[in-house]
Amino acid sequence: MPQRVLVLNGPNLGRLGSREPDVYGSTTYAGLVERCTKLGAELGFDVEVRETNDEGEMIRWLHEAADGKLPVVINPGAFTHYSYGMRDAASQRTAPLIEVHISNPHAREEFRHTSVISAVASGTIAGFGIGSYELALRALATA
Amino acid sequence: MPQRVLVLNGPNLGRLGSREPDVYGSTTYAGLVERCTKLGAELGFDVEVRETNDEGEMIRWLHEAADGKLPVVINPGAFTHYSYGMRDAASQRTAPLIEVHISNPHAREEFRHTSVISAVASGTIAGFGIGSYELALRALATA
Amino acid sequence: MPQRVLVLNGPNLGRLGSREPDVYGSTTYAGLVERCTKLGAELGFDVEVRETNDEGEMIRWLHEAADGKLPVVINPGAFTHYSYGMRDAASQRTAPLIEVHISNPHAREEFRHTSVISAVASGTIAGFGIGSYELALRALATA
Amino acid sequence: MPQRVLVLNGPNLGRLGSREPDVYGSTTYAGLVERCTKLGAELGFDVEVRETNDEGEMIRWLHEAADGKLPVVINPGAFTHYSYGMRDAASQRTAPLIEVHISNPHAREEFRHTSVISAVASGTIAGFGIGSYELALRALATA
Amino acid sequence: MPQRVLVLNGPNLGRLGSREPDVYGSTTYAGLVERCTKLGAELGFDVEVRETNDEGEMIRWLHEAADGKLPVVINPGAFTHYSYGMRDAASQRTAPLIEVHISNPHAREEFRHTSVISAVASGTIAGFGIGSYELALRALATA
Amino acid sequence: MPQRVLVLNGPNLGRLGSREPDVYGSTTYAGLVERCTKLGAELGFDVEVRETNDEGEMIRWLHEAADGKLPVVINPGAFTHYSYGMRDAASQRTAPLIEVHISNPHAREEFRHTSVISAVASGTIAGFGIGSYELALRALATA
Amino acid sequence: MPQRVLVLNGPNLGRLGSREPDVYGSTTYAGLVERCTKLGAELGFDVEVRETNDEGEMIRWLHEAADGKLPVVINPGAFTHYSYGMRDAASQRTAPLIEVHISNPHAREEFRHTSVISAVASGTIAGFGIGSYELALRALATA
Amino acid sequence: MPQRVLVLNGPNLGRLGSREPDVYGSTTYAGLVERCTKLGAELGFDVEVRETNDEGEMIRWLHEAADGKLPVVINPGAFTHYSYGMRDAASQRTAPLIEVHISNPHAREEFRHTSVISAVASGTIAGFGIGSYELALRALATA
Amino acid sequence: MPQRVLVLNGPNLGRLGSREPDVYGSTTYAGLVERCTKLGAELGFDVEVRETNDEGEMIRWLHEAADGKLPVVINPGAFTHYSYGMRDAASQRTAPLIEVHISNPHAREEFRHTSVISAVASGTIAGFGIGSYELALRALATA
Amino acid sequence: MPQRVLVLNGPNLGRLGSREPDVYGSTTYAGLVERCTKLGAELGFDVEVRETNDEGEMIRWLHEAADGKLPVVINPGAFTHYSYGMRDAASQRTAPLIEVHISNPHAREEFRHTSVISAVASGTIAGFGIGSYELALRALATA
Amino acid sequence: MPQRVLVLNGPNLGRLGSREPDVYGSTTYAGLVERCTKLGAELGFDVEVRETNDEGEMIRWLHEAADGKLPVVINPGAFTHYSYGMRDAASQRTAPLIEVHISNPHAREEFRHTSVISAVASGTIAGFGIGSYELALRALATA
Amino acid sequence: MPQRVLVLNGPNLGRLGSREPDVYGSTTYAGLVERCTKLGAELGFDVEVRETNDEGEMIRWLHEAADGKLPVVINPGAFTHYSYGMRDAASQRTAPLIEVHISNPHAREEFRHTSVISAVASGTIAGFGIGSYELALRALATA
Repeated sequence: MPQRVLVLNGPNLGRLGSREPDVYGSTTYAGLVERCTKLGAELGFDVEVRETNDEGEMIRWLHEAADGKLPVVINPGAFTHYSYGMRDAASQRTAPLIEVHISNPHAREEFRHTSVISAVASGTIAGFGIGSYELALRALATA
Repeated sequence: MPQRVLVLNGPNLGRLGSREPDVYGSTTYAGLVERCTKLGAELGFDVEVRETNDEGEMIRWLHEAADGKLPVVINPGAFTHYSYGMRDAASQRTAPLIEVHISNPHAREEFRHTSVISAVASGTIAGFGIGSYELALRALATA
Repeated sequence: MPQRVLVLNGPNLGRLGSREPDVYGSTTYAGLVERCTKLGAELGFDVEVRETNDEGEMIRWLHEAADGKLPVVINPGAFTHYSYGMRDAASQRTAPLIEVHISNPHAREEFRHTSVISAVASGTIAGFGIGSYELALRALATA
Repeated sequence: MPQRVLVLNGPNLGRLGSREPDVYGSTTYAGLVERCTKLGAELGFDVEVRETNDEGEMIRWLHEAADGKLPVVINPGAFTHYSYGMRDAASQRTAPLIEVHISNPHAREEFRHTSVISAVASGTIAGFGIGSYELALRALATA
Repeated sequence: MPQRVLVLNGPNLGRLGSREPDVYGSTTYAGLVERCTKLGAELGFDVEVRETNDEGEMIRWLHEAADGKLPVVINPGAFTHYSYGMRDAASQRTAPLIEVHISNPHAREEFRHTSVISAVASGTIAGFGIGSYELALRALATA
Repeated sequence: MPQRVLVLNGPNLGRLGSREPDVYGSTTYAGLVERCTKLGAELGFDVEVRETNDEGEMIRWLHEAADGKLPVVINPGAFTHYSYGMRDAASQRTAPLIEVHISNPHAREEFRHTSVISAVASGTIAGFGIGSYELALRALATA
Repeated sequence: MPQRVLVLNGPNLGRLGSREPDVYGSTTYAGLVERCTKLGAELGFDVEVRETNDEGEMIRWLHEAADGKLPVVINPGAFTHYSYGMRDAASQRTAPLIEVHISNPHAREEFRHTSVISAVASGTIAGFGIGSYELALRALATA
Repeated sequence: MPQRVLVLNGPNLGRLGSREPDVYGSTTYAGLVERCTKLGAELGFDVEVRETNDEGEMIRWLHEAADGKLPVVINPGAFTHYSYGMRDAASQRTAPLIEVHISNPHAREEFRHTSVISAVASGTIAGFGIGSYELALRALATA
Repeated sequence: MPQRVLVLNGPNLGRLGSREPDVYGSTTYAGLVERCTKLGAELGFDVEVRETNDEGEMIRWLHEAADGKLPVVINPGAFTHYSYGMRDAASQRTAPLIEVHISNPHAREEFRHTSVISAVASGTIAGFGIGSYELALRALATA
Repeated sequence: MPQRVLVLNGPNLGRLGSREPDVYGSTTYAGLVERCTKLGAELGFDVEVRETNDEGEMIRWLHEAADGKLPVVINPGAFTHYSYGMRDAASQRTAPLIEVHISNPHAREEFRHTSVISAVASGTIAGFGIGSYELALRALATA
Repeated sequence: MPQRVLVLNGPNLGRLGSREPDVYGSTTYAGLVERCTKLGAELGFDVEVRETNDEGEMIRWLHEAADGKLPVVINPGAFTHYSYGMRDAASQRTAPLIEVHISNPHAREEFRHTSVISAVASGTIAGFGIGSYELALRALATA
Repeated sequence: MPQRVLVLNGPNLGRLGSREPDVYGSTTYAGLVERCTKLGAELGFDVEVRETNDEGEMIRWLHEAADGKLPVVINPGAFTHYSYGMRDAASQRTAPLIEVHISNPHAREEFRHTSVISAVASGTIAGFGIGSYELALRALATA
């Protein structure tokens, strides 16, 4: 049975493709789901892609991952900058948890806050568009 | 058909009138709804006033506004100080989005955080009680 | 009729006992509920212990407490560091509201943010494990 | 007899229309005077629009307003960032004093200084071009 | 033989009752001694309440507690903000040491310095007037 | 021939007596002039009291004092916080220059800026109402 | 019977005259005592000049002044920068308390800390050598 | 017809030669005017040297330069550190505007504020005494 | 002909395997070279792994990459925190440049400085041991 | 007659050997006294080792050293971080004064305050256990 | 014999003309060398233009200049922001040392660090492209 | 066979004796080498004194020391303030490494940066001129 993997997306990421294509590329959220699922299958993973605008739901998904010892790929979106609740939930994991960002947050002038989740993540991949997710799945495959 | 306008209120604002009347005036939330709807009608708007304590719901309303190209008047309440998720959602708008505050936040000692949403708003109106909403509707009418 | 008291817990606290036992002790959330209810009964309180990962729900519970003039014992968990929405709701109380923490937050290196709720609490009790809740209930009994 | 209202403009604002039209719009200072006077008349005000590059003159105008209990609409221009002398003069008012900005200062990267006058203003309106002045006059009309 | 407990008070606390009754309540220092001694006896403690304006004396008392493995309840008063000497002495304890404050220091605007002793205390109790001491004694009784 | 002394007042001080009497006392500017002139005469000084809202004028008066080697008593008012131009002019003096403040600026929460002129003053006297000026004149008399 | 006045000096001030005469002038501590006593007598005061290197003793003298409603002239010396214990004691006074400094602390590069006692003093006089004490006594005489 | 060039000097610079010769050299303001006019003539410029202590006048001169498209050499003096009004006026220029300083401001300990005008200047020349002006004129000649 | 790729390592990285194996894993630098070369070959790259302790040499390699339009994988080691020279060289690239770190720098308490090179990198991969390099090579393969 | 040398120890250092042996080593205070006295005798010094928890006493000892022109080796303990009173006393010395620390304060995370006494010391020796004192005595011997 | 002058360039400047022409202009490094040499000859200088990416080499060149008392024109490039080693070497000069920048560093958002070398330079010239070097040579000619 | 010891000097230290003799004393670098070698021989060490202006060379010497388990005395010179590369190399040592400074860096106003190497050194000795090196050698002899 393939290893289940959760790919979790924070607020506004479900609207990918309808927003600032110069920053985030033209891939839509549906495209993101398809690419992650497809590569996951190749790598022997059963990938489940989810998105939420609710911090509480994100926290419950991280609890689910902790209980099931499921690896996690997480793009926290704007939660990156303030959700200590998400961070505490993420710190309970025993399986790997990889933080991804579509664009390179260090190159975006507007956010000066650092990521509150990086300190509890296994690793961070940023700046490769949807490719950030695919690299994260590959990282899980070789972990 | 009149232009729909969303008037969105953040946490605790639904309790207007039961809280710190010396700061916020004695108008109740019901009064706020009535005044906005009435002035909106005079200005040719179909005004819909909503309030939520949930960041996720606020984000979805802003997505709804972006999809429908609806003008927004938003009083973010306490979200003003930390909800980068709301901010990202607000930045997707193409119609005007006006930030309002009942009291003048610069005169309230307790909050030193600046507004995370101002940078993506069309404009800001603060310090006129419920009148802040009415001025915002007028601003939309002449935009 | 015994005085109703709300014991409110923020994100991740429902998982007590499954997380970092060296920091939080080995008591489970069920144990917390039992100890609070039992001591509450001895002190003449009808204690209701709740937990949520949703800021909006926490805000509504605080509104409920304000409307019912119910004393509150609150462990805000990670909300301690950023939820100004919870803070505004807490500031509406007329009955006592006591902030508790299981561990001593000042001794935990990782959080440098101060509590956003302390300024509107009646008092703070931190560092006594589940005992922090019990001391808070005793404080209510003698208030 | 109509209520006299002073509309006071700080340094460089007299050159409106000859400067950075992409930021400030194409309205000239003469147009500003005309629009304020016209709307003022409709609202029953005798509006007097003035501009100065001299801090001392601005202070004297604010004294004049304080002595005559005249409502003030003030666009402090660059004085916003450092003129505590203007601020002290503004704090003596008993009639309303509304701070306006043509553009949204929060969206202009270059200024990080906050407004020294906001704390003593009745309210603030920013980001509506010349419309900021008109909204301020309307706010006075309903105060 | 009952367990000896030291209740140590820092500068100016011996004058309790003669100072700012709106902040500290009307209980006098004599009342504080009596309440602590009485509740201590009920809990099986031999409570000794002391006060000093001298940092060196406070340090020696903490050495005495460390040598005798005596539990300590300490209200550091103004030493809270700068006495690293007291802090070093407090860090040598093996028995519990509980920091108490009569008022809630987070609600007092004037002090922005954090407590230098919290990091080495077992726990902190603040905001319950003289009740803070009584809660601390109860905490010792159940430790 | 009596020694000439300049008593220079910055912005808004000419309105003394008409502003915030709880902070500045009820003495009017005319009263200030009279008391300074009278005491000056007793001390053998020919005191000239001036006030200006214009930084340039203040600078020119300080040049005049430097050229005439005249002692100066200066209440910079709001210039205290930002007028480096006034400071540079003040630093050219060879006769004593005493900075005075009517109220104690350290006790006024609103100003956190330090005085830019203190470093070049002979001394500072603050918190004695109009008496601050009189003490400064006495200090000149014994210098 | 003449009004008693306490002139209190903090650490190292008893060594006046043996230390950095270019900063503090050549007057010795004995000279300071004599000048204060003499001028005090002229003004109808019974002046008692004291000096201590012990914070606790300074605190007790301030308690004595508070109990006797005695006016205080205090040169806190190095306590200026950190003794919140002295500050709390000073805040209990009902008679005037004037902070003095021999040199102008704003002109001494080495200390960047502000005075912790200024906020609770009636006024501050700095930069006039021993004359600072004499001006303070005069200020008391006219208070 | 030679190109007109404005050489504008801020507060206190008209007193050059009477102030701190060790910092600014012994050249007088008259000497500065002569040297600039002479070198200007050699380079084919009609140089007009002005000085003012009034921010408003400086702003008007910068407007004059903007209207006439006149190159500007400006030594802002103390305005360097706070005059955002001067800065806004300077940013309207289309001809070159060169900021000069007689001494090297980075080597003068007392000013930690950076220049508010550098960001809108074509270039900066500092540290060459009156030579800074001459280098600026040469820079204009080769621009 | 396979695409040449430079894998550049900053100071101390040539000693990999002899240093803090609990942080960096037990792979030696020779192992790093082998793994990168091998995976590179599989992906169609001619990978050249280099290491230097000299900032100037790193800069010259980045110039070589810019001239040859060679993709770069760079682990800047300690240069991450201060080498603006390396950063300027890196910003000249037209081919992709990926910053890698063996451990997760955000989880290492000791370094609070952010990376000076992230802002000019295509993307960042951190926390996967030697795997970080392999993921970077894969990212280049799909770029 | 041998040169007298004072070895002065601040708060808690008299308890050496009973506290955190992993940080401070296992030498007791008695051992410290013996080693300093013995080495001092070899070097021709009459060494007197003292310890105090009282800032005032430390200040008086430094006065004694200044009066007797005695060299001083001082381990200020916790006074390092805040005792400006001790610092002022130390600055009066004419003989050498060497600051010593048993452990390396820069390696102890908990203290971020710098030493207030270093600027007035002849030199600093830190990190050699009791050896720090011995190196200081040797430094005096060769001074 | 003409006076030798060193024109020293820091990292990446040897690549002038191949990098960001919109910021640095289109002149190549060869052009820079030619222009400096040519103007130098006109002014009677024997100009030697060098560039290095190595901090150590830059330091040695500054030593050479100090030993030969050679005037220096230095464009430190990225070393501007962190090379205290270069700064110490530069501070040993006795002949003039002029810091130049091609663009105006104050107008480049990306660098917030100030120059570590300005404090030891004779003067600074920035913002005139290659002309900055030429103005520096002229400044040397008239020094 | 005597124990080899490396005495490593950072940038500009090879020029000792030709620079700022009032700060560093008149000893030349040759004198430093001789004194260290001579004392080393007395203590049974084979001392090798080196100096470099190149960070990379310093790093390689520290690697050599780590490989040979050689004790190190290091005066990092200006590298003290920024060379994290040197710091990482220094952290690999197993033999003692002692940081020395000729002057007391805490007393030199110009450098506010703390040492980046202190946290990984065994100890620090500063302020004794060349004697700092000798004390470090003695410390090694008794380690």
